[in-house]
Amino acid sequence: MAKLKRYEKLADEVAALIRSGVLKPNDRLPSVRQACTSYEVSPATVFKAYYLLEDRGLIQARERSGYYVREHARTPLAEPGMMAHRGAATDVDVSELVFSVLGSLKNPHTVPFGSAFPSAELFPLQRLARSMGQSLSRLSPHAVIADQTDGNAELKRQIALRYMLSAVHLPMEELVITNGAMEALNLCLQSVTEPGDLVAIEAPAFYAALQVLERLKLKAVEIPVHPRDGINLDDLEHSLATLPIKACWFMSSFQNPLGASLSDARKQRLSDLLHRHQVPLIEDDVYTELYYGSHPPRPIKSYDRDGLFMHCSSFSKSLAPGYRVGWVAGGRFTGKLTQLKLMTTISPSVPAQAALADYLQHGGYDRHLRKLRHTLEIQQQAMLAAAAKYFPKGTKVTQPEGGYFLWFEFPPQVDSLKLFQLALAQGISLAPGPIFSATRAFGNCARLNYGQVWNQESERAMETLGRILASF
Amino acid sequence: MAKLKRYEKLADEVAALIRSGVLKPNDRLPSVRQACTSYEVSPATVFKAYYLLEDRGLIQARERSGYYVREHARTPLAEPGMMAHRGAATDVDVSELVFSVLGSLKNPHTVPFGSAFPSAELFPLQRLARSMGQSLSRLSPHAVIADQTDGNAELKRQIALRYMLSAVHLPMEELVITNGAMEALNLCLQSVTEPGDLVAIEAPAFYAALQVLERLKLKAVEIPVHPRDGINLDDLEHSLATLPIKACWFMSSFQNPLGASLSDARKQRLSDLLHRHQVPLIEDDVYTELYYGSHPPRPIKSYDRDGLFMHCSSFSKSLAPGYRVGWVAGGRFTGKLTQLKLMTTISPSVPAQAALADYLQHGGYDRHLRKLRHTLEIQQQAMLAAAAKYFPKGTKVTQPEGGYFLWFEFPPQVDSLKLFQLALAQGISLAPGPIFSATRAFGNCARLNYGQVWNQESERAMETLGRILASF
Repeated sequence: MAKLKRYEKLADEVAALIRSGVLKPNDRLPSVRQACTSYEVSPATVFKAYYLLEDRGLIQARERSGYYVREHARTPLAEPGMMAHRGAATDVDVSELVFSVLGSLKNPHTVPFGSAFPSAELFPLQRLARSMGQSLSRLSPHAVIADQTDGNAELKRQIALRYMLSAVHLPMEELVITNGAMEALNLCLQSVTEPGDLVAIEAPAFYAALQVLERLKLKAVEIPVHPRDGINLDDLEHSLATLPIKACWFMSSFQNPLGASLSDARKQRLSDLLHRHQVPLIEDDVYTELYYGSHPPRPIKSYDRDGLFMHCSSFSKSLAPGYRVGWVAGGRFTGKLTQLKLMTTISPSVPAQAALADYLQHGGYDRHLRKLRHTLEIQQQAMLAAAAKYFPKGTKVTQPEGGYFLWFEFPPQVDSLKLFQLALAQGISLAPGPIFSATRAFGNCARLNYGQVWNQESERAMETLGRILASF
Repeated sequence: MAKLKRYEKLADEVAALIRSGVLKPNDRLPSVRQACTSYEVSPATVFKAYYLLEDRGLIQARERSGYYVREHARTPLAEPGMMAHRGAATDVDVSELVFSVLGSLKNPHTVPFGSAFPSAELFPLQRLARSMGQSLSRLSPHAVIADQTDGNAELKRQIALRYMLSAVHLPMEELVITNGAMEALNLCLQSVTEPGDLVAIEAPAFYAALQVLERLKLKAVEIPVHPRDGINLDDLEHSLATLPIKACWFMSSFQNPLGASLSDARKQRLSDLLHRHQVPLIEDDVYTELYYGSHPPRPIKSYDRDGLFMHCSSFSKSLAPGYRVGWVAGGRFTGKLTQLKLMTTISPSVPAQAALADYLQHGGYDRHLRKLRHTLEIQQQAMLAAAAKYFPKGTKVTQPEGGYFLWFEFPPQVDSLKLFQLALAQGISLAPGPIFSATRAFGNCARLNYGQVWNQESERAMETLGRILASF
């Protein structure tokens, strides 16, 4: 990963102060002179950092008076608290509800706040096409066959290299290239469970996790998640001690739908817990590259001591939607995962693997990611500002430090499934709370996607949602 | 599909007479004058047909005497008979054996007679790359996301069109694009079975079918297969009447490993049987485009009356190895299959789908297929000739009319697992009989792949195999 420039680091530090509430809206930033002294940098560095923060929508200049934190930089809406506990081992039966919601997204004229994907316009599709052309002209007939069983070696090397640059050791031999993270997660669950087994998941959880549990006839033990700190470790500790949990499926960073991330200390504690009970972790880490801060979050996998953790990720959310290339670093389960993959789909597309290997070497991934993160952060500010303006009093919202989802907790009288129907009739989709729960909880919550290019239509859609919300 | 030219049709008719034994080695072909009269064609057509047959290695000219069937055009080796019945419902436990055999194929310096794939050199990889380039330059950001759920519409249209041209009606709405036929087959089995259920398969069967049954904890009811006529329908009828079979998984054309094909009359009878018992058919039809005769075989799916049959195929064996694009025409199970796919892998690679859609429109698929079939038929002749020359007396062999596998039945004292080890030590792979059986039967049989470009090395490898066989 390219090293951050000094002014970028400074901007990130100030942004973190704003997001955490140390610097509040309308607070004045240190003067350039003060900042030079405090941070031991040149005036030019401070200027560039402040310009960048202005560009990111976090601060604004006031004539002859300096820089101030913008009104909506920290949203005036309150943050929701820890999600309520959902009780022990539940059979999952949510798939039909999820499919009826997903089916509603097909209309291209719908404002896609309910989508699971960021807009494909944010990705370097033409540059990827060039990598595809270049790699296909080099791909040998032998590799076309062999890469199906082994995965593209250069791609695996590039993935291992990116981890290494973040000081995470993920040996190439542990990497199994899969058809997106979705296949990786499916294979992981199958490698460590039998029908009827208990699996600990988050509450709220990514709905696909619920669907996969349902498909594999596994029971969900839902662990409540705090929107900022991540899963409740005390609760998990209790569940591990009292229930025969066979695996945990958690998102360590920018959890879908809450955007929560575990701190490093909490990751260490989680790792200790799981090692003590020898319960395998399936780490779903697909949003990790979309951090707004200075450093990528560390995967929990980096705390693994003896191959107990399976770490899944993909390029679908950060670089190449539709290419369907993901991976799992499988620890002690790598052999089993490889065999399961060969029996299920054999391999992800060999040309898609080769194109990504070429892009990672020559395409400028870090440049693209910096731009993408910047765009997403601005779009988050825009959606938060619109929510503060249009949504009813008492609405709570997360303010995650990465990804592209906001989680709204509306006043208790709001029925988000009804909200979903009413909004859809107005050409607006959203993801209602109950699809994120084995027990159809979160009836007054919804996930909204800000991964679409923000425009007048988005603004009007938020206004319309506000009117519908007011009608409850 | 492009219409066959008159001389190609004539050549196919003569080839069929040779393969079926009506015309025997050293038989003289009709003179050009006779052929003109019998077939009502011009002398030029007969000449072109005979040149083509000569080119295909089936006949040879003798000076001032005319054309004769070549010595090895019909192999002097006998054909094996019906495979023995393996008894009722068997738990499957063959995966580890299969993986140990497949693992041996990784060495690129091994003569790959054990491979499941034809050589990638036989495929239009550079023309496909051009289609990839052209389709990616047109692919909209919207399609990159939407094609994941729905599949590429033009690809589905092209697939439906190819069936239509063979007078098979497969509506686009039934088509689910999958990550190769392997994913399609997995989804089909999951859509109609629960762990512990009985599934009728062929004996010998494609080993992946055995592995999938094992993974899904299904029991195999093995139906014996005749190397020419396909599965024993009397046996199947008895099994359907006496056992609670939940699904059948059969290859209708050029069955792997035997190369057997059901006649249209037998397909009709199979269809009637399954409709009477309302047992779903999973039709694995990946070799159908590799027919050597004049007409593509009809899928059993074309006899389906009420959506009971799921028809799976792919481009992996006929056009685009490694692209991992296949499909299933799902009948009444289409909705369920779509949902399962979204929960398992979401989608095959969108660029790969787009490239194939472009190639099918503009790439010259039928021209490529004619060349491929021709090459495979010649390579079959070469392997048969080498087997007749080097393998011990009493060796029996199939002579399939499509695909790229020969099935050898060696004298009873040959242990094909030991043969496999001894051959591998000499740098030659093969697929030993027991990996094709839930009960590890076929201990004196092996499948050899002739889908590799035939050369001196292949010839020497056959000679070496012959020496090892003689040592038993």
